[in-house]
Amino acid sequence: MTESFTPQRPDQLAPNMEWDAWGTAEHRTELGPEVHTLLEQALGVHRRRVPLAESDVRLTPTRLTPEYRADLVRLLDADHVLDDDATRLRHAGGKSTLDLLHRQGSDSQTAPDAVVLPADHDEVLSLLEYCAAQSIAVVPFGGGTSVVGGVDPDSGRLSAVIAVDLRRLNALTDLDPVSRIATVQAGATGPQTEELLGRHGFSLGHYPQSFRHATIGGFAATRSSGQASAGYGRFDDMVEHMTVATPRGTIRVGHPPASAAGPDLRQLFLGSEGTFGIITEVGVRIHPIPAVVEHRAWSFPDFTTGADALRTLVQSGLPPTVLRLSDEAETGLNLALHKDIGRTSPGGCLAVTTIEGNERYVRDRAAAVQEILGAAGGVDLGAEPARQWEHGRFGAPHLRDALLQAGALAETLETATTWSNLSRLRAAVTEALTDTLREGGTPPLVMCHISHTYPAGASLYFTIVCAQTDDTVAQWTAAKQAATAAMVAAGGTITHHHAVGRDHLPWMTDEIGDCGVEVLRAIKNALDPHHILNPGKLIP
Amino acid sequence: MTESFTPQRPDQLAPNMEWDAWGTAEHRTELGPEVHTLLEQALGVHRRRVPLAESDVRLTPTRLTPEYRADLVRLLDADHVLDDDATRLRHAGGKSTLDLLHRQGSDSQTAPDAVVLPADHDEVLSLLEYCAAQSIAVVPFGGGTSVVGGVDPDSGRLSAVIAVDLRRLNALTDLDPVSRIATVQAGATGPQTEELLGRHGFSLGHYPQSFRHATIGGFAATRSSGQASAGYGRFDDMVEHMTVATPRGTIRVGHPPASAAGPDLRQLFLGSEGTFGIITEVGVRIHPIPAVVEHRAWSFPDFTTGADALRTLVQSGLPPTVLRLSDEAETGLNLALHKDIGRTSPGGCLAVTTIEGNERYVRDRAAAVQEILGAAGGVDLGAEPARQWEHGRFGAPHLRDALLQAGALAETLETATTWSNLSRLRAAVTEALTDTLREGGTPPLVMCHISHTYPAGASLYFTIVCAQTDDTVAQWTAAKQAATAAMVAAGGTITHHHAVGRDHLPWMTDEIGDCGVEVLRAIKNALDPHHILNPGKLIP
Repeated sequence: MTESFTPQRPDQLAPNMEWDAWGTAEHRTELGPEVHTLLEQALGVHRRRVPLAESDVRLTPTRLTPEYRADLVRLLDADHVLDDDATRLRHAGGKSTLDLLHRQGSDSQTAPDAVVLPADHDEVLSLLEYCAAQSIAVVPFGGGTSVVGGVDPDSGRLSAVIAVDLRRLNALTDLDPVSRIATVQAGATGPQTEELLGRHGFSLGHYPQSFRHATIGGFAATRSSGQASAGYGRFDDMVEHMTVATPRGTIRVGHPPASAAGPDLRQLFLGSEGTFGIITEVGVRIHPIPAVVEHRAWSFPDFTTGADALRTLVQSGLPPTVLRLSDEAETGLNLALHKDIGRTSPGGCLAVTTIEGNERYVRDRAAAVQEILGAAGGVDLGAEPARQWEHGRFGAPHLRDALLQAGALAETLETATTWSNLSRLRAAVTEALTDTLREGGTPPLVMCHISHTYPAGASLYFTIVCAQTDDTVAQWTAAKQAATAAMVAAGGTITHHHAVGRDHLPWMTDEIGDCGVEVLRAIKNALDPHHILNPGKLIP
Repeated sequence: MTESFTPQRPDQLAPNMEWDAWGTAEHRTELGPEVHTLLEQALGVHRRRVPLAESDVRLTPTRLTPEYRADLVRLLDADHVLDDDATRLRHAGGKSTLDLLHRQGSDSQTAPDAVVLPADHDEVLSLLEYCAAQSIAVVPFGGGTSVVGGVDPDSGRLSAVIAVDLRRLNALTDLDPVSRIATVQAGATGPQTEELLGRHGFSLGHYPQSFRHATIGGFAATRSSGQASAGYGRFDDMVEHMTVATPRGTIRVGHPPASAAGPDLRQLFLGSEGTFGIITEVGVRIHPIPAVVEHRAWSFPDFTTGADALRTLVQSGLPPTVLRLSDEAETGLNLALHKDIGRTSPGGCLAVTTIEGNERYVRDRAAAVQEILGAAGGVDLGAEPARQWEHGRFGAPHLRDALLQAGALAETLETATTWSNLSRLRAAVTEALTDTLREGGTPPLVMCHISHTYPAGASLYFTIVCAQTDDTVAQWTAAKQAATAAMVAAGGTITHHHAVGRDHLPWMTDEIGDCGVEVLRAIKNALDPHHILNPGKLIP
């Protein structure tokens, strides 16, 4: 079987995100006047950025020679080899705050020399063979939602770089309803995948904030984690098998449901960020579309009490599907931004749970969650704040765009550690961010939430807002460096679900050690001997 | 903290298994006269083997020169460098049926040239450095329970081989009760680990059939799966971090609870079978000793109905802790062997569930299991047959020894596949075994059970009993080859939890492809450039 979004019709392919902002125009957010006042009074934000018009953007000229272009057209046909400026600009990188500041800056922009759109695995394989022979660098491009420079058009030591946009690989190629495994091509976006599975009564249940644009291949290549991870696991937990095109040929990894035949090679390509090969197809675990979803919000007197409650719940073996906890600052700001919730602020820390499944499962699990969170100090706030959270859950990056335009610096970063080390890590990162930005004259608001929990520990997701200085790039670079150094020193991972890309590369040796780096290099040399794949990412 | 079994006193170390049989003498099993009659009548078994006395065993002479020996003594001291025949014989390989037949044969035995017992990680590291410099092969040795030739004393292209017995590394070196992670040295056996954790109220809950003798490092290096895998997961699921000594230095892998910083390097060393390094310490997830354990047995009219019921249960998200199903043949034989259960045979297929946890958890989960298995055609047989199963659950390998002595060929093999492919795989393997052994004049009894279940599929564990021919090694080799070829052809993995070792090596390329093999070789060359580590295992 193959069911798809008729990949031959470009108008039915997923749209590109805007060149200078997250997402598409339909979800663009405007800040109300009271938010501008708040920013000015609380953080000293008082000038707005003047947006750059697309027509004023200067791109580096394409380095793709007519000969190379003709070869690529022979491989993929003319419709699928694009080197116009509009397309190149939309593949010029990801969507971190630094990316967006750079995109709107006056310097000339580095863009891929061409963007190619292969139709299937075999075309990807031919492309890699060709680019290896010609020493052309290749950046795999899914939704382009990277916030760590993961799709930066870096040509490394090579003389040209092309972005391989996978949007035409958007089909459901196999569905095993008995074993609950769907095989989905790597370029299918979150919504496309849910639509394809929904026709058969199934769902993937992977809802990261990038859901609307990010792709199945991107989820796998970056070890994405979705908001329902307590129930359905991280994306890397959901992957049963993968097909990967490498310069040395095709590799198929994963033997569902489990194997003891040596190292688990899936786990080499999960998180490989396009440096070992291009994932073209992923076999993922699916589940029936839940019949019932129970939303509930909880208030905890403080973050420590709330975190202990989450730990008790996840260690009980009876987790809900979504489980998250905002600290006092985030809880306060969310309430300030969503006055329409129609509640008085309960103060403290807001937690959200949703429980999905059939009627019996949801009823039993809701009773267990109620008992455990209640006993741990949680006050039931009813369904509405949780529904409100769900309604807005993909909206934060649009808010960031509005804040950036308003003259605020806004960005997020994330880490994870064991439960016993969580407070220490949170304090260390908060202090590093606060001290660095305060020393630069822009004391920040630092908010934090837990959105992914495990028996052994949890993630910490920080949101930082402060006034912009004259050199915003230098301002954020210093803060990010201080925060990441604090993570390393306090025993956190340098990334729980955003991957390494270009931005976390300086700390990769801290994360995995010299021997670990040697292992990655050995695999790289074996599969990509000409080093054409995504230069400058992941591997020091 | 470090709590251990006083590793300096050899008399408190775990005992070696018997040189010619599984386990230690205290658990040795005798067959009753009615079993001999059954074997004779049903399978044509009619001659008994004459056991070989240890004094009649001929070992290949040690190739360790006095110079090498002196160097090793300098590294580890004289008490921990052993080259007496008794010790060498007890490290001459694992415990597959082929191993045991070979051990009791009249040919001279290949044994490691010496057995060394390092005290800690640093001594292991020094040993590897020394052996790499001198080109001496190294076989890591835990409990010696391999049934795939994983601890075969193969020197590869090198001129000597030593077994590195890890029994002195048996300490609990860290316990984080909040995050529920225990750090245990690699040489601790199953019972030692439970004893160390039990002092603090915790349990690992990993109970493979090799539990009494196998070690934490061995569980990790072979991707062991225990009988409570439905509740606690496979061993590879439980590992939060590991420390590994390699010829290129120490590598520490794993960032609990999760990281997106590239490939998961834990998953390279899990299943690496000592070919990339020697695991010296493992951080494992633990849980409180369960307050309540509920045992229950079920009868299903046939294997297909039972397998569908198990699938429904595990896909419901409400699995018990232990979940297993025997087919008609295994159910019948077990009843024949355990007449003391005091029940009339219900016929059909026996399933066993246990549910462990606190009172509330067990009560709720038992109600869910009851409802789901009942609706799927299961008849509740009460607790007793499940307790009986638990009582004897480590005994099957002793029964194998008794059967071998009685003149029967008895062995097990295992695979796994998706639920939708389970019937096809079971039929293909059963047919291959039956046809091959029947053609050789010894029609077998082939029994099968499911003991590890996943949302996507399940394991199949086969037990084969038939009469021995004159050349038992050739007889079983042919059957094993036919069965493994059938697994590959029918879409199963070549091993679900026994690992690859020497015995599954010929099918490793079928399992992971040429590109996968290249990846393993690249990692091997990077970490073990002199190829001293466990030659002849895992990597083609």
